[in-house]
Amino acid sequence: MEKNHKFSSFIINIEPIGKRVISHEDETLAECALRAGIDLITSCNGLGVCGSCKIELIEGQLTHPTSNEVNKLGKLRDNPNMRLACQTFPLSDVTIFIPPGSLTQGQQLQVEGQYHPIALQTPFQVYILELDQPSLKDLRGDWERLQDAYFSQVHQSLSASLTTISEIPAIIRSQNWKVKVIVREENNKNELISILPPDSTYYGIALDIGSTKIAAFLVNLENGEMLDQSGFMNPQIALGEDVVNRISHAMQNQDNSKKLQNLLLDRIHQYIQEISRKYKLDPSQIIDMVVVGNTAIHHLFCGLPVKSLGEAPYVPVIQTSLSIPARHHGIHIAPGASVYLPPNIAGYVGADHTAAVLATRIQDSPQTVCLIDIGTNTEISLIHLEKIHACSCASGPAFEGAHIQDGMRAAPGAIDQVRIEDNKIYLSTIGKKPATGICGSGILSVMAEMRKNQIIDQRGVFNRSHPMINQDQKYLVLNKSENGQEIRITRKDVNEVQLAKGAIRSGIEILCQKANIQPDQIDHFLIAGAFGNYLDLASAIEIGMFPDVPLEKYHQIGNAAGAGARMLLINHDQRKVAETVGKQIDYVELTAEPSFNDTYVSALIMEKNGNLKQLL
Amino acid sequence: MEKNHKFSSFIINIEPIGKRVISHEDETLAECALRAGIDLITSCNGLGVCGSCKIELIEGQLTHPTSNEVNKLGKLRDNPNMRLACQTFPLSDVTIFIPPGSLTQGQQLQVEGQYHPIALQTPFQVYILELDQPSLKDLRGDWERLQDAYFSQVHQSLSASLTTISEIPAIIRSQNWKVKVIVREENNKNELISILPPDSTYYGIALDIGSTKIAAFLVNLENGEMLDQSGFMNPQIALGEDVVNRISHAMQNQDNSKKLQNLLLDRIHQYIQEISRKYKLDPSQIIDMVVVGNTAIHHLFCGLPVKSLGEAPYVPVIQTSLSIPARHHGIHIAPGASVYLPPNIAGYVGADHTAAVLATRIQDSPQTVCLIDIGTNTEISLIHLEKIHACSCASGPAFEGAHIQDGMRAAPGAIDQVRIEDNKIYLSTIGKKPATGICGSGILSVMAEMRKNQIIDQRGVFNRSHPMINQDQKYLVLNKSENGQEIRITRKDVNEVQLAKGAIRSGIEILCQKANIQPDQIDHFLIAGAFGNYLDLASAIEIGMFPDVPLEKYHQIGNAAGAGARMLLINHDQRKVAETVGKQIDYVELTAEPSFNDTYVSALIMEKNGNLKQLL
Repeated sequence: MEKNHKFSSFIINIEPIGKRVISHEDETLAECALRAGIDLITSCNGLGVCGSCKIELIEGQLTHPTSNEVNKLGKLRDNPNMRLACQTFPLSDVTIFIPPGSLTQGQQLQVEGQYHPIALQTPFQVYILELDQPSLKDLRGDWERLQDAYFSQVHQSLSASLTTISEIPAIIRSQNWKVKVIVREENNKNELISILPPDSTYYGIALDIGSTKIAAFLVNLENGEMLDQSGFMNPQIALGEDVVNRISHAMQNQDNSKKLQNLLLDRIHQYIQEISRKYKLDPSQIIDMVVVGNTAIHHLFCGLPVKSLGEAPYVPVIQTSLSIPARHHGIHIAPGASVYLPPNIAGYVGADHTAAVLATRIQDSPQTVCLIDIGTNTEISLIHLEKIHACSCASGPAFEGAHIQDGMRAAPGAIDQVRIEDNKIYLSTIGKKPATGICGSGILSVMAEMRKNQIIDQRGVFNRSHPMINQDQKYLVLNKSENGQEIRITRKDVNEVQLAKGAIRSGIEILCQKANIQPDQIDHFLIAGAFGNYLDLASAIEIGMFPDVPLEKYHQIGNAAGAGARMLLINHDQRKVAETVGKQIDYVELTAEPSFNDTYVSALIMEKNGNLKQLL
Repeated sequence: MEKNHKFSSFIINIEPIGKRVISHEDETLAECALRAGIDLITSCNGLGVCGSCKIELIEGQLTHPTSNEVNKLGKLRDNPNMRLACQTFPLSDVTIFIPPGSLTQGQQLQVEGQYHPIALQTPFQVYILELDQPSLKDLRGDWERLQDAYFSQVHQSLSASLTTISEIPAIIRSQNWKVKVIVREENNKNELISILPPDSTYYGIALDIGSTKIAAFLVNLENGEMLDQSGFMNPQIALGEDVVNRISHAMQNQDNSKKLQNLLLDRIHQYIQEISRKYKLDPSQIIDMVVVGNTAIHHLFCGLPVKSLGEAPYVPVIQTSLSIPARHHGIHIAPGASVYLPPNIAGYVGADHTAAVLATRIQDSPQTVCLIDIGTNTEISLIHLEKIHACSCASGPAFEGAHIQDGMRAAPGAIDQVRIEDNKIYLSTIGKKPATGICGSGILSVMAEMRKNQIIDQRGVFNRSHPMINQDQKYLVLNKSENGQEIRITRKDVNEVQLAKGAIRSGIEILCQKANIQPDQIDHFLIAGAFGNYLDLASAIEIGMFPDVPLEKYHQIGNAAGAGARMLLINHDQRKVAETVGKQIDYVELTAEPSFNDTYVSALIMEKNGNLKQLL
């Protein structure tokens, strides 16, 4: 492709990685992304013939499609925003979305979580039914024929949805009138879930849908073993970085809500297809599903209106658990399968937190335990003397690398640890790749080092006399790459971290006030979430994000919500527990607490325990 | 529009009227239809500017759209088969469909039926709920808030589908937290069906879906009064004249099944919109629906596969009654409403016959009663000594005017009565309009007259020596219109009637054999269906279609299936009765009866009682 040397330099926002780079003059989007360290697949070296560097334009203007693009994108041309990065120049500041298939390596997605082994306990029963073939002497309907065969074994009646009944004719004939049926036998009701060839195994899926990423687990429900765990991006990110943005987007009109729902459902559909191909199974073998997410994600997934989550006093449409017929909901698994969602606790403490509490079993703990699930929104539960208080803190996306000048998500090339000694900077990056930005754990780490080295003071203000500080614009340079692009920490970055850590710390403090205890009376701190798993605890204590108690009281437990979702899939008794836990948790609306303002302001101070001791 | 004088003469099949005409040279479809007596609206006299003569091309080739068409059809151009009849010439034999809106007068559709008044008895309870508004001190979810308000009145828990829950937030806020709720309280379960403004009434719809036409009833469910009854065409007719054609069409591929289902659902949706506009009601006020139809229509409506209905031994997928969530099924009425379908008896005795039996209450009769519901398929039930036998006869579409050379449906201009005296023919037509064809009752009438006047013999063979017979081609001319087009009765027409009446009569005979009685032991013959309501009983006896018993034993009861559907809507106890009746009826597969062949051949004879006396 010949370049016509007239394209200017613009800001390129690269989603879902969350990286912001400035394009050079006459640089294609592919060149720009690669220069920024993003592993875009460009098998043909930018000739536009391999079609592997597909991207989607979210906002802004690009050059017109080239003939190569028109050829390679084929049917994708239905979506005019789908482009080849190597054929495209920006004509304005743009936001682009890189689909997972266009990257050589996925992001670092936390899918595992601490997991208490739990017994397999489901209401599903399995029978092999041999049916009589119809004849002029036996003209029973297919459904009645199957019901009769079940009755002759179980001596009970069988029910089924119309969707399930409609699948009977084809499968009983293709299997020569001998089939395996999965029946949910519960509450004196026997409901047909799936009709399968006699030798089929059956499975369940648990999904933890975060604002940014989705963790998915495939479990064999015959023995409870986990067969697969995978992580992928939540595609809703294209319509709003955090749930607040998505809620306002959805509130604009009904179509937007529907679009947000469909983005999720389509991605889940794609996952089911991928996993089915990988394990050579038929989607009808997937007989159960559990979905957890925060309240906004929960509502958007369910197709519930989110308006009340966007307006004070922020009440959810539903708190109780839900069981939705999967097929009616557009999720193509077994015809009688349901999708179970545990209860929401409040508008900003969702079903994912219920699942996290369940996974950690803190509700049964005789000790005092604080569970902190860090994300764009951080949910905290504190159990003391068998009473659970929970709250939600708007910690923001700083720890996801967003709103940080050179921030990025925890992908290869992200700085994840920083040490400053004798005015020298030592860095570690994910995948040991050349540094291209800084992720949450790196940001936390550099803040602690900046404080220890007196580069910033307790208010977060740069020490102008420090030799490492650029005197004109007040920033710290972490790294200078070969092409001269610097990775910097600015005053605004420090501010973002202050707001985030202040929100989390004040949540912990207010819950302690509610329980009438001091933070050092807490026996265990359980730190959940992807960022929570990688963060440096000493750094977090250093800047006052967490209380200054012995490190051994802290436990980094990974994706607790995902682990809870798996428990709810494997053991249906846990669903009753979830219902009880949901009701047992006492939600604390922080902004309604008289002490909130003072606590928050004190928690902003960048010092061990902030300014909180004076308050107490 | 200037004509270019080059268009030839072709056969034009006009649906849903079922009329077949030959176009003249250089004649537009509108001119051809009007000449054939079809009341197409042509307000602008064919100038192509009023857009009222819309038709849909089903098969064949037409001239390219004119610029007038492109202008007038606007958005309809999404469907390239939608055309203006006055702008269009045929380029081959064609089949066109005239939508109801393009006709000045609808067809004569039987919607009423004999109706035993029945008490209103539904499980729906109505409450006015006043909810507390949410505040920082009361952060319950909308659904929990509504449940609590219900509990405080009823002291029981309330359930709801996700679809219903999703409607709560908007309505409770728009009604200032005071709403009317409709709750189905049944089997220890209380399910929320609809949330309405406090002053709303609520309604139900009963639909009798025939192969050709649909009868629809709107009932006020507060007092049981019928508010509206209307009839419209079953749009599936465009894809198959009778159910056998539609079954083979559906068996070709999944898309065809879906298309047949969607044609029905779209038409029902349109009806709901029309009726809502007419009576100024919101579809959420329609809280219940009953649908009856033959087994094939039932399965197509439900989205059940019809393959087993197209292959021996013709078993249905389901016989038991169904209750389907309306919204999930694409029927936009109250969010918690269900569509109830009574049981099917066999592959060719459907839920509509169950409803007809119910409406006539023959199951409770101590007398011997024969119910004959005549249509393209005729279902017959005979009750004798509390035992009910039922069968299905492939009577074919002759009595709907199809497969008859100059046949048409019972629309204005159709000959409906014929008398022949002294070699002169006396005719009556529907709407006293100039004769354009002959409908079912006319065909039956002319057959009886032809027999009485020895124009045909008992085998249906034309008497060549009769002066009224055209000697060359053997047909009877009923009428010569001004433009010289003749309405004729041919040997093939006589044959079609023989097959139809033979099928019905042999059904009656076999059921009598099963009950071990003679036809004259039957106390009452109930003749149901549109054709059944208009037919001349004496003619039917004359040609041996019905047994030769006193006329006072016959009762023409109209649309019994529609009446049964209304009963099932108004009185839910009748749904339990339907279930029992469904099981009580003993289906007789005629072709499996050893005596069937002899009986059928004897029943073909065009004579009082056919040749059946000799057999008995």
